[in-house]
Amino acid sequence: MTETASVRPLPVSEVSSWDFEADVVVIGYGIAGVCAAIEARNAGADVLVLERTGGWGGAAAMSGGFVYLGGGTALQQALGFEDTAEEMEKFLLAALGPGVDKAKIHDYCQGSVEHFDWLVAQGVPFKEEFWGEPGYEPPADQGLMYSGGENAAPFNAIAVPAPRGHLAWTRDKKLGEKGGGYMLMEPLAQRAEKLGVRHEYDVRLRRLVVDEAGRVVGVAATRYGKPVHVRAARGVVLATGSFAYNHEMVERYAPKILGRPAATVEEHDGIGIRVAQALGAELAHMDATEVALIVDPQLVARGILVNGRGQRFITEDTYAGRMGQAVLQDQQNQAYLIIDEVALEEALETESAMSFLRTPPKWVAETVAELETEMGLPEQTLQATIELYNRHAAEGKDPLLHKKPEWVKPIGTPLGAYDLRGYTGGFTLGGLRTDLDSRVLHVSGEPIPGLYAAGRVTSGICAGGYASGCSLGDGSFFGRRAGVSAAADK
Amino acid sequence: MTETASVRPLPVSEVSSWDFEADVVVIGYGIAGVCAAIEARNAGADVLVLERTGGWGGAAAMSGGFVYLGGGTALQQALGFEDTAEEMEKFLLAALGPGVDKAKIHDYCQGSVEHFDWLVAQGVPFKEEFWGEPGYEPPADQGLMYSGGENAAPFNAIAVPAPRGHLAWTRDKKLGEKGGGYMLMEPLAQRAEKLGVRHEYDVRLRRLVVDEAGRVVGVAATRYGKPVHVRAARGVVLATGSFAYNHEMVERYAPKILGRPAATVEEHDGIGIRVAQALGAELAHMDATEVALIVDPQLVARGILVNGRGQRFITEDTYAGRMGQAVLQDQQNQAYLIIDEVALEEALETESAMSFLRTPPKWVAETVAELETEMGLPEQTLQATIELYNRHAAEGKDPLLHKKPEWVKPIGTPLGAYDLRGYTGGFTLGGLRTDLDSRVLHVSGEPIPGLYAAGRVTSGICAGGYASGCSLGDGSFFGRRAGVSAAADK
Repeated sequence: MTETASVRPLPVSEVSSWDFEADVVVIGYGIAGVCAAIEARNAGADVLVLERTGGWGGAAAMSGGFVYLGGGTALQQALGFEDTAEEMEKFLLAALGPGVDKAKIHDYCQGSVEHFDWLVAQGVPFKEEFWGEPGYEPPADQGLMYSGGENAAPFNAIAVPAPRGHLAWTRDKKLGEKGGGYMLMEPLAQRAEKLGVRHEYDVRLRRLVVDEAGRVVGVAATRYGKPVHVRAARGVVLATGSFAYNHEMVERYAPKILGRPAATVEEHDGIGIRVAQALGAELAHMDATEVALIVDPQLVARGILVNGRGQRFITEDTYAGRMGQAVLQDQQNQAYLIIDEVALEEALETESAMSFLRTPPKWVAETVAELETEMGLPEQTLQATIELYNRHAAEGKDPLLHKKPEWVKPIGTPLGAYDLRGYTGGFTLGGLRTDLDSRVLHVSGEPIPGLYAAGRVTSGICAGGYASGCSLGDGSFFGRRAGVSAAADK
Repeated sequence: MTETASVRPLPVSEVSSWDFEADVVVIGYGIAGVCAAIEARNAGADVLVLERTGGWGGAAAMSGGFVYLGGGTALQQALGFEDTAEEMEKFLLAALGPGVDKAKIHDYCQGSVEHFDWLVAQGVPFKEEFWGEPGYEPPADQGLMYSGGENAAPFNAIAVPAPRGHLAWTRDKKLGEKGGGYMLMEPLAQRAEKLGVRHEYDVRLRRLVVDEAGRVVGVAATRYGKPVHVRAARGVVLATGSFAYNHEMVERYAPKILGRPAATVEEHDGIGIRVAQALGAELAHMDATEVALIVDPQLVARGILVNGRGQRFITEDTYAGRMGQAVLQDQQNQAYLIIDEVALEEALETESAMSFLRTPPKWVAETVAELETEMGLPEQTLQATIELYNRHAAEGKDPLLHKKPEWVKPIGTPLGAYDLRGYTGGFTLGGLRTDLDSRVLHVSGEPIPGLYAAGRVTSGICAGGYASGCSLGDGSFFGRRAGVSAAADK
């Protein structure tokens, strides 16, 4: 999308003929789109999905595949974890704020058990196995994992921890073929097809078509550059993803992640947000971003993270998404991982160690003083930090940041340091403001007639923070709502 | 404004008669509005200002009155300070980012000397006296001061420092009657009146009036609840201020300052942003906020600031706006000022000490260890911090944060600590995206015909950072542009 392409609504009077027609037109065949399509079809609507690439999948199929669910899902119960919607809500309110949409979080937590069952009913498989080690993803096909720092400080003192990262059974992950996101999408897309959901690929959304009363009645798109007009008798569902790949929007709304999008796809150019903004749609949390520290968590937990002043700033055994935000936002992307030789070797031998970052430390030294000098840190700062850390670690405790005792060991010599600049990446979390029925809201507060949205084109349950699985989670959950609402909009 | 009041554009066909007419209609009689009005009138337009309160002033008249200008203004030169537009631009790019509108900053720096002369030509007086001590404002009627941390780390190593906070001569400030902002606004409002600018008070903007082609041709307002329709033959200038007092907008766009607006007025409810959003206007940097640490800078410079982990995090002799942002954003509003008895007494005796925060420290103790325990900080953290600080201070240096030697002294005993929660306040900096001619841009990239904006209803030269005087600075600078552009829009 370039800024010269108009995203203004097209009056229906200017549409001479429709190329396609359906009750509900879903734009984007990722997680939000497929769930909207299934539910709209289940509600009796004729459904057409328009997808700009050559097939279903979206960012979801490329992702790790976490779905953040809890409150006592069948999988949590089978694996012996107790959880309640209330504890889940407590955690999400603390971890995803400030400024979260409290009504959305409450609704999401209350409906979480049912939503898990629904995914299973659609054919999504989850293996009954728990993975308890630090890591981005389980090493194989384990189905449940902590994915938001629930069992690390400070959250383990705020809400009863439970693992809530649910992963679709990847079956053949050991063969290195498909990730969890793909295995979540595949059964859902198959389900949609079986139900009779139609789709048209290689069709790109350009503008919304509106009638004289301001109701959205279709879309203007292009296929290989040629205009395509699609009528939506009941409603249009925007499921077009984030704006992480729109440089201008990132510069204006979320400049902290400029130049470092990750974990999403190039199609995420914000077009769905644009066409709705042109109708007066309200936005929310456009600055919110997921930012992960892309360094093996097995490594990080065994070392200490320090900032440009040689000070520790976050417990090293927490969720990589919290560490990434702390590095990029609170520490202005100045951070280092300090680890001794013994711990480094130990980390590399663990089962879930990731191979892609087995680079050696940037600096190595025989003493802390030497390392401090080599790194160019202010004199005596790293020394003071490690002296204090080691004094407490000798007693197995970390009163500064409450890292769990299992990860607290004095840092010995020789030791090394990684420069973490360049090891953060993320995507945008802000977008259209929607209500609990996934209706797109106007700046005046009322819904824009005929327009629905879900997934990362919207602002979902996240604001200032993130937990892995929230995007596939609220995208699927409120995607279903969008389908139900649009189908009922006669 | 409540969300039930429609902000949707009103078709001109629904306006039966006009209550007022003018070439250029300016909404809001603060700094941006008055400058727009003067320049539109100078360009030969018939100008009408609509103001919702009973008189001119806006947030500007209530403010300290800094105008951020440089590049070698007549005042800088008269006081012996060298400055160039290039050094000013270097500083602003480093201090106001990331994500700043580079074209706006460049333009602003290049035009800064002329803009100062223009203010003087309108009758705004500036006293040729420099104030060099830390503080929010000069103690009396000094006209020039550092107002953005230019001469503190890290900026003093990035650009040649020059004081750029220009203050209108308050004449009677010692009598406690009027602040610098009032004395900036008064001559400008008088000038506008002399030029024949008309005004209508107690008129509240509700909606923009648009013709069939989408051009803004007037406004729908209310006066004491009754509808008022105003025709704008050439253009409408929005100068309605920020959204700092719109709770819902702050929650959705800038939740970090929820509950702590300051340095603005209740009329800043975002209405100008809303009515333009309803037309498809683009926004920028809606999360950006000015956040000041509202503690006497004379006190802060003589102590050390520590976070909830007992660590220092920012040089204590910098601009209060940078310290406020660091406390609220980077340290999640957990911060303390540590100061010893001798330094505290010294600070209270300085000429510019502010009386309104002469509260005693929350905690006092005979030793650092005792203070650390009383404050509930993690054990040995504050002790380690002060030990390191004092070791360096004994040599008159601060390698950690580069506080200037004049403020670096070992911290003695007895000593005390202030809890800084509750001592930060700010306002919003985000808003409508405008071009260098102050035209309001649509999400498609092109200007919305007939619509102009300046001041805090727009995103100006600031994004992630702030310097005192930037708001009155870009508000007046681009307010003039709005007036020129609207007058030429025949």
